[in-house]
Amino acid sequence: MRASVLRDGRMVYREDVPDPVPGPGQVLVAVRSCGICGSDLHFAAHGDQVLTMSAQAAGGSGGGIEVDLARDVFMGHEFSAEILEAGPDTETHPAGTLVTSLPVLLSAKGAEPIVYSNSTLGGYSERMLLSAPLLMPIPNGLDHTHAALTEPLAVGLHAVNKSNIERGETALVIGCGPIGIAIIAMLRARGVESIAAADFSPKRRELATAMGAHQVLDPAQGSPFDSVKARVVFEAVGVPGIIDDVLRRARPGTRLVVAGVCMEADAVHPFFAIAKEINVQFVLAYTFEEFAESLRSLAEGDIDAAPMITGEVGLDGVGAAFDDLADPERHCKILVTP
Amino acid sequence: MRASVLRDGRMVYREDVPDPVPGPGQVLVAVRSCGICGSDLHFAAHGDQVLTMSAQAAGGSGGGIEVDLARDVFMGHEFSAEILEAGPDTETHPAGTLVTSLPVLLSAKGAEPIVYSNSTLGGYSERMLLSAPLLMPIPNGLDHTHAALTEPLAVGLHAVNKSNIERGETALVIGCGPIGIAIIAMLRARGVESIAAADFSPKRRELATAMGAHQVLDPAQGSPFDSVKARVVFEAVGVPGIIDDVLRRARPGTRLVVAGVCMEADAVHPFFAIAKEINVQFVLAYTFEEFAESLRSLAEGDIDAAPMITGEVGLDGVGAAFDDLADPERHCKILVTP
Repeated sequence: MRASVLRDGRMVYREDVPDPVPGPGQVLVAVRSCGICGSDLHFAAHGDQVLTMSAQAAGGSGGGIEVDLARDVFMGHEFSAEILEAGPDTETHPAGTLVTSLPVLLSAKGAEPIVYSNSTLGGYSERMLLSAPLLMPIPNGLDHTHAALTEPLAVGLHAVNKSNIERGETALVIGCGPIGIAIIAMLRARGVESIAAADFSPKRRELATAMGAHQVLDPAQGSPFDSVKARVVFEAVGVPGIIDDVLRRARPGTRLVVAGVCMEADAVHPFFAIAKEINVQFVLAYTFEEFAESLRSLAEGDIDAAPMITGEVGLDGVGAAFDDLADPERHCKILVTP
Repeated sequence: MRASVLRDGRMVYREDVPDPVPGPGQVLVAVRSCGICGSDLHFAAHGDQVLTMSAQAAGGSGGGIEVDLARDVFMGHEFSAEILEAGPDTETHPAGTLVTSLPVLLSAKGAEPIVYSNSTLGGYSERMLLSAPLLMPIPNGLDHTHAALTEPLAVGLHAVNKSNIERGETALVIGCGPIGIAIIAMLRARGVESIAAADFSPKRRELATAMGAHQVLDPAQGSPFDSVKARVVFEAVGVPGIIDDVLRRARPGTRLVVAGVCMEADAVHPFFAIAKEINVQFVLAYTFEEFAESLRSLAEGDIDAAPMITGEVGLDGVGAAFDDLADPERHCKILVTP
């Protein structure tokens, strides 16, 4: 079958990938849409760094990601799919049901994240395996392209939940890439009454407004902290220097949620944070409940994801799409539709 | 009158300091005991750095500390004292009452911290001014030497409160200088059932045990994180590298309270914190209520501060005491008793 795989840092189109065979508790699905995540771009460019850092974060206990970069790597974790066939002794929804799922594959060996793997297929494939207990049928006739945004929006919801923000508090979202946009959408869905968003890109600021920001700011025109009196700040950029800038400029008592993923060493001045008693909550991923709530928000129309989808490619266009995503003026989320 | 003042980086004994005159709302007191704080040592050695960083943390809004290092600087903010006389139109406790107070002097100009000043006297003086509304009489016949520890213990209490620790959670305190010891004492007073403490110094580990730690560790023998499964970590060292080490080694979901004051730039790896969703709460000082509770804990015998007091000097011995405090094998808290 067809798939796009990571090989030597580039996405390569293949037509010779063996079809996966569902085991007990597993379900074979046809991928309908799969979003390209910034973390995939990063892994393609800096895979060894990600593997090294993951191993270190796991404290040498072997909990890191095990991938051989010398072999093809399957990726794609933001997907919607159609059920084809269940594995042996596996009860699931009827064939043809549209579903999404947490990107985790359960098997006799345990739970494996569907994120980067030499063996477990991801959403950049014609077909893949999912876990029957984790499947969520897509309700209300929600389009499969929108349903593929369940995962990134769940990331935004998780960040919002971890911030403990109340409706009357002002939020400042720094960075309006897909994660920042997901946070904005979820803040708006939560009913937060004052959402400010900052990004250098005019296009991204426009998208931030479309997705719910009440105020957008161009950092090139001055620090957002000069004009926004936020108590809750979301960092969704993930490059060195941003955290320290927030610590330096934020108001006393600020709660900073770090949702941007900075893989490098980053210099901060603890004293700025101490003098203002800042709380920094680092966040990752989401819970099962948050994933389900994200899907519900989409299906019930609380969030219209249409403006986020800025491109659509086939499996043979994934490589070019990875390149195109470097330009913030052109793209937020490109979907792969096999 | 007599005082010890900071001049050219050294504490200098003077006998010619003019007696302060209490204004409305102020009270003249005779200092009975004043603890030497690590922040005073740091200010003596790196005063310009502290002033620069404070100004930056205040965001250029002028909220920093204004001190001219070319002139004598008064310090000493951990004191107990005896009331001598109230200023005009000022009601207060009778002369002779032993008191302590938040280190803040109220005047027509506003509230000035009693910490580093060219004009406002601190506790390294024979007499000083305090604010009538902030005075707390020392109850239960608590000795004035112990009462002087109200302030550093309030710092510990504040850190414990900010951690939201529950009695059944394991705490790990990194660094057993005065702040770490205050945290240990307050964790124990709170009823936390598992308190581990780490320090390179045998003497400090001994003190940690005396003040309530259930387990002490020598980091030279291996990382404390290898043997302690803590969910709440208190960083009370305040030198570059410690925060990153915690982020790297701590368990998923750790709450890190940063109570050590690192004035320098510090390299961290945000990814370690992201991968484990660590929360970092930076803390400073305490509230009025925490200060009062700290005094109450001492007066009611919940905390016996005696082991913390490792030396006592007169005003003419402050300079030598500053030098002696560099050696963790000899000292925790030296009191100045004018």
